[in-house]
Amino acid sequence: MIDPVALTSRLIACPSVTPADAGALDVIAEALEELGFTVHSFWEGGPPDGPVRNLFASRGEGGPHFAFAGHSDVVPAGEGWATDPFEPIVRGDLLHGRGAVDMKGAVAAFIAAAARVSNHQGTLSLIITGDEEGPASHGTVALIDWMDARGIRPDMCLVGEPTSAARLGDTIKIGRRGSVNMWIEVPGTQGHVAYPHLADNPVSRLVRILDEVKGWTLDTGNRWFQPSNLEVTDIAVGNPATNVIPAAARARLNIRFNDEQRGQDLIDRVREVVTRHAPRGTVEAKISGEAFLTEPGTLSTLVTDAIRRTTGLDAELSTSGGTSDARFLSKICPVVEFGLCNATMHKLDEAVAIPDLHALTDIYADIIAHALGGGQQG
Amino acid sequence: MIDPVALTSRLIACPSVTPADAGALDVIAEALEELGFTVHSFWEGGPPDGPVRNLFASRGEGGPHFAFAGHSDVVPAGEGWATDPFEPIVRGDLLHGRGAVDMKGAVAAFIAAAARVSNHQGTLSLIITGDEEGPASHGTVALIDWMDARGIRPDMCLVGEPTSAARLGDTIKIGRRGSVNMWIEVPGTQGHVAYPHLADNPVSRLVRILDEVKGWTLDTGNRWFQPSNLEVTDIAVGNPATNVIPAAARARLNIRFNDEQRGQDLIDRVREVVTRHAPRGTVEAKISGEAFLTEPGTLSTLVTDAIRRTTGLDAELSTSGGTSDARFLSKICPVVEFGLCNATMHKLDEAVAIPDLHALTDIYADIIAHALGGGQQG
Repeated sequence: MIDPVALTSRLIACPSVTPADAGALDVIAEALEELGFTVHSFWEGGPPDGPVRNLFASRGEGGPHFAFAGHSDVVPAGEGWATDPFEPIVRGDLLHGRGAVDMKGAVAAFIAAAARVSNHQGTLSLIITGDEEGPASHGTVALIDWMDARGIRPDMCLVGEPTSAARLGDTIKIGRRGSVNMWIEVPGTQGHVAYPHLADNPVSRLVRILDEVKGWTLDTGNRWFQPSNLEVTDIAVGNPATNVIPAAARARLNIRFNDEQRGQDLIDRVREVVTRHAPRGTVEAKISGEAFLTEPGTLSTLVTDAIRRTTGLDAELSTSGGTSDARFLSKICPVVEFGLCNATMHKLDEAVAIPDLHALTDIYADIIAHALGGGQQG
Repeated sequence: MIDPVALTSRLIACPSVTPADAGALDVIAEALEELGFTVHSFWEGGPPDGPVRNLFASRGEGGPHFAFAGHSDVVPAGEGWATDPFEPIVRGDLLHGRGAVDMKGAVAAFIAAAARVSNHQGTLSLIITGDEEGPASHGTVALIDWMDARGIRPDMCLVGEPTSAARLGDTIKIGRRGSVNMWIEVPGTQGHVAYPHLADNPVSRLVRILDEVKGWTLDTGNRWFQPSNLEVTDIAVGNPATNVIPAAARARLNIRFNDEQRGQDLIDRVREVVTRHAPRGTVEAKISGEAFLTEPGTLSTLVTDAIRRTTGLDAELSTSGGTSDARFLSKICPVVEFGLCNATMHKLDEAVAIPDLHALTDIYADIIAHALGGGQQG
């Protein structure tokens, strides 16, 4: 048997701030090999975003194929911790350390669960990357390519992101909104404010653009998603002279959108507004991820039933929050996310409740057993 | 007799970049004393905007009192002149040097004109400051206070700003628009773009504010003024993070307004809009000057008649352009502005056409003679 608290502690002790591995995947590989998993790991990418270490491990063969996806990297610790962020410390019921909930604790719990479920049917796999908190360019995307080249395609995937809010098991995610950033630049004609007819104020044009797009009702949301939302996150001119009409104005906006929108359509719509108000205006855009939804069904029921049996809670099926690697995995199979409480994730003094680590292990073991059969031990 | 070209040259040789005097007012005082003027000069203010040297000179007594107002300071030369900006050089018909048209040439022309008109009635005075191109806080305002304390109040005033456009005498100014700058700050509540309901985006509020004020028709202008106009001259947030709703947004705007508006009313109107869209928003404001108009009449006719007699041109009565010290003088008497061609003012290789200097002397002498009587010599 594997103690999820001890395994989480060993992972916290590896300062694996993206893209550093710092030995984290060796800890995971060693534990999985002892459990009969075949482990593959490889490095991907180069500076400054890499190299990144990725791991794919599987046990058993044939279908059904149930996968757990997670990451071994963590966000930087930041200044001001009460304890050393990379020295796991238990205080009362809490295990402190960077990554305790996001998501070394969940990875450890899943490995402990895999230790408990023996003789399952089909294939159980773990898809673990060291590049989830960074640009995610050399991580899960590379793992999917790696699997694809070998004909490996899970039938369903559980992502261990910390989805719980107030209590472990109160929330799972069955989808995520998409996200797109756009950089708008409006050129004008510089001039003296006393002679506006000789100038072309780009701020006037930009304000009309922003007022129009901010006035959009993109959609009203639907059963599973809140309405898509646009925020202007920056504006800039940089003109120190009170008597000068500036030569250019810039803005940056972000749209978090649900499954009724597509990133490229939103870019096209913004571009149309920009061009209408500022024919010389430009829009640079980057889609961080499209929205996805795993319709409630077999996978979500596996997870919510396991949560109910262990905690008595009826988990909410949510699609709120930021993006995760589930946006990549959703392209190959149904994906649901479920993990620890997220109150301290990315914050100072990140900590996991030890009873939660044990309960999460119970839930994950229940999910595996119901997905693939096999008896639970311990 | 005084040669306006020689006197302009002597003034150009003084590098009197605001607030430096560099001997310029000594040159003027010496010339005026030789013409029978009583000259008073005094220093005003301290670093960094001063000390500034000011001069008041008068000849004769009683009414009518005709005043000429001007300045001995110049804007900085800047890099890239073909000749030394403070070494007067004649090339062909042009006298080159910083201040040649704005407005050492006009001051010299008026002194040369005063030399020509002898035995005039009433009082002829010159109000010359060394702080017109700078903040103007220790210049004409201080001179007006100085005169007021001595019961001196002109009946009319001619300001020697370079108002001519294509040809000497094509334009005089009978008023100026006012100008006010406002700094708007809108605080918000910072947050993650994925959770907009937990944040309050100040950019959204600022955009609504700017779109509303930019949509105003303040007025449609009138016989003497173009419509008042508002320009947003800067916007700023300074948020590097694409996933963060920022904590504050700022904008700066400038309104050039005609005599149908008052600066404080405009500030109040902007403040009302800001407060309506952003209850915690603030507006800092600075009125550079109120609009003024000297209704066409005795003074403007004196000037336009003199221009017509000398050049044959019918001068346009204009109120366009930036501000000048006429905004202060207009509070004590009717003011009209007329001077050299402004094509090179504030620019590299500033230069005055020598025939213009002589013609301007002729026009100024005609104005003095018709305003105060007296015979012209030379």
